[in-house]
Amino acid sequence: MILEARTIKKDIIDNLNKEVSKLKTIPFLVVIQVGDNPASNTYIRNKAKMCEQVGYKFELKKYPEDVTEEYLLKEIDKINNDNNVNAILVQMPLPKHINETTIENSINPLKDVDGLTDINMGMLAHKKDSLYPCTAIGIIDLLDYYKIPIEGQNIVILGRSNLVGRPLLELFINRNATVTLCHSYTKDLPKITKKADILVVAIGKKKYITKDMIKKGSIIIDVGINKDNDTICGDVDYNDVIDKVKSITPVPGGVGQMTVAELGKNILKAYNLQKHK
Amino acid sequence: MILEARTIKKDIIDNLNKEVSKLKTIPFLVVIQVGDNPASNTYIRNKAKMCEQVGYKFELKKYPEDVTEEYLLKEIDKINNDNNVNAILVQMPLPKHINETTIENSINPLKDVDGLTDINMGMLAHKKDSLYPCTAIGIIDLLDYYKIPIEGQNIVILGRSNLVGRPLLELFINRNATVTLCHSYTKDLPKITKKADILVVAIGKKKYITKDMIKKGSIIIDVGINKDNDTICGDVDYNDVIDKVKSITPVPGGVGQMTVAELGKNILKAYNLQKHK
Repeated sequence: MILEARTIKKDIIDNLNKEVSKLKTIPFLVVIQVGDNPASNTYIRNKAKMCEQVGYKFELKKYPEDVTEEYLLKEIDKINNDNNVNAILVQMPLPKHINETTIENSINPLKDVDGLTDINMGMLAHKKDSLYPCTAIGIIDLLDYYKIPIEGQNIVILGRSNLVGRPLLELFINRNATVTLCHSYTKDLPKITKKADILVVAIGKKKYITKDMIKKGSIIIDVGINKDNDTICGDVDYNDVIDKVKSITPVPGGVGQMTVAELGKNILKAYNLQKHK
Repeated sequence: MILEARTIKKDIIDNLNKEVSKLKTIPFLVVIQVGDNPASNTYIRNKAKMCEQVGYKFELKKYPEDVTEEYLLKEIDKINNDNNVNAILVQMPLPKHINETTIENSINPLKDVDGLTDINMGMLAHKKDSLYPCTAIGIIDLLDYYKIPIEGQNIVILGRSNLVGRPLLELFINRNATVTLCHSYTKDLPKITKKADILVVAIGKKKYITKDMIKKGSIIIDVGINKDNDTICGDVDYNDVIDKVKSITPVPGGVGQMTVAELGKNILKAYNLQKHK
């Protein structure tokens, strides 16, 4: 089975649209961009489009490449304290003279729709409801949509980023999976990946996972989005593994679809969290 | 090899004693106790003794069993704002009418020497320096003391508590180990534990781990402290596994020793963190 996610994204956006139309005030996302990175421009356009589809208010605040960290922190502080703004997102990467983790942690945790503040990560690791990173929670929602069991499954995650691997590890533990986290220091990787009922790959290496590295009948979640000549491909060699897997997410049309949809969910969640404070 | 920890504890306390004797002000730990649980009394006595040995100032604030959560929060707020106090610890368990996680998170993170606040857990998961739970960091220090490599090792942790399993998982990942977290929902546990180069057991079930569940030549870290008639024993059946392991922590005299020593280290760390704020 191909774990296609365009339909899920459409469902999520339709549902959000219905919910938002009942609200008295319109949830408002502010995206902060520094410089003019072309990839960032594309990602931001996708976010703006999602906001339009749901019916959220959207604003892009664009700062020059040489903006100082101090100035940016003051700007974020203003937006943190603006009661009209419900959600804040800083588009990464930032120029090297700006400390990304300082910027991430300057965001009001109740408006932190990327789930990158230390406190939101800690709440997740303590099994509390908070704003979780979009791609990580998107993978959980995708598995739930296709009724793929998580509890008691042996799940192997490749990659330990703050955006995917680490929060996903905690989300899976909270859902009673047995989880193994692997990375560049892991020895004898195929021995471990071959034991996985569910294998999540988020390492940014194109077509890295081949059929000799997976278990027959396993479920493969491919988080990679890599350039491959004029097209894009995942971290998994899709054509190589397809006959051996039970299910797999396509690239494009898989996990990437969930990320934007979950941002939409997080904006409404942030809006509601703020109303109850 | 028996990974005995009494000597390590003594070394840590001696070193802290030297460092503290050079300070102009004396670091100060306040322990909050509700009710009169006999086990809690013993734990608190051990902490007081450590403080005496290091040269820390120690105070026990004891509240009646029926103290309200609201009153306790006000008391903690006072201590949070008392610049003479550098470290605060609430002795668990608390009576059922008090929410433990609310109390834990009311402590100033810079004074949170148990490392139980959400923000300190989040900083750990984001690979930042913060106050880590004593038992978890004690296990890292014990392995380092005996020069047991962590990087690239296959480590299996049994148990996912906020005090041990979850922070230890993050500490091991930060040290480049490949980590698998198991718990009560894990299927076919022996198959997983048998793959472990290092097996950490923190489940509170006496002599649960037997030789048929471990790999020959592995390293066993036993966090359990269970009553066994008139004596205490770990979560591992020590006599059963001893001929098959490379190294093992004894119970008593192992991980438990590290916990109090690490509290000593955390108090000085908290003191220094506050000076640099």
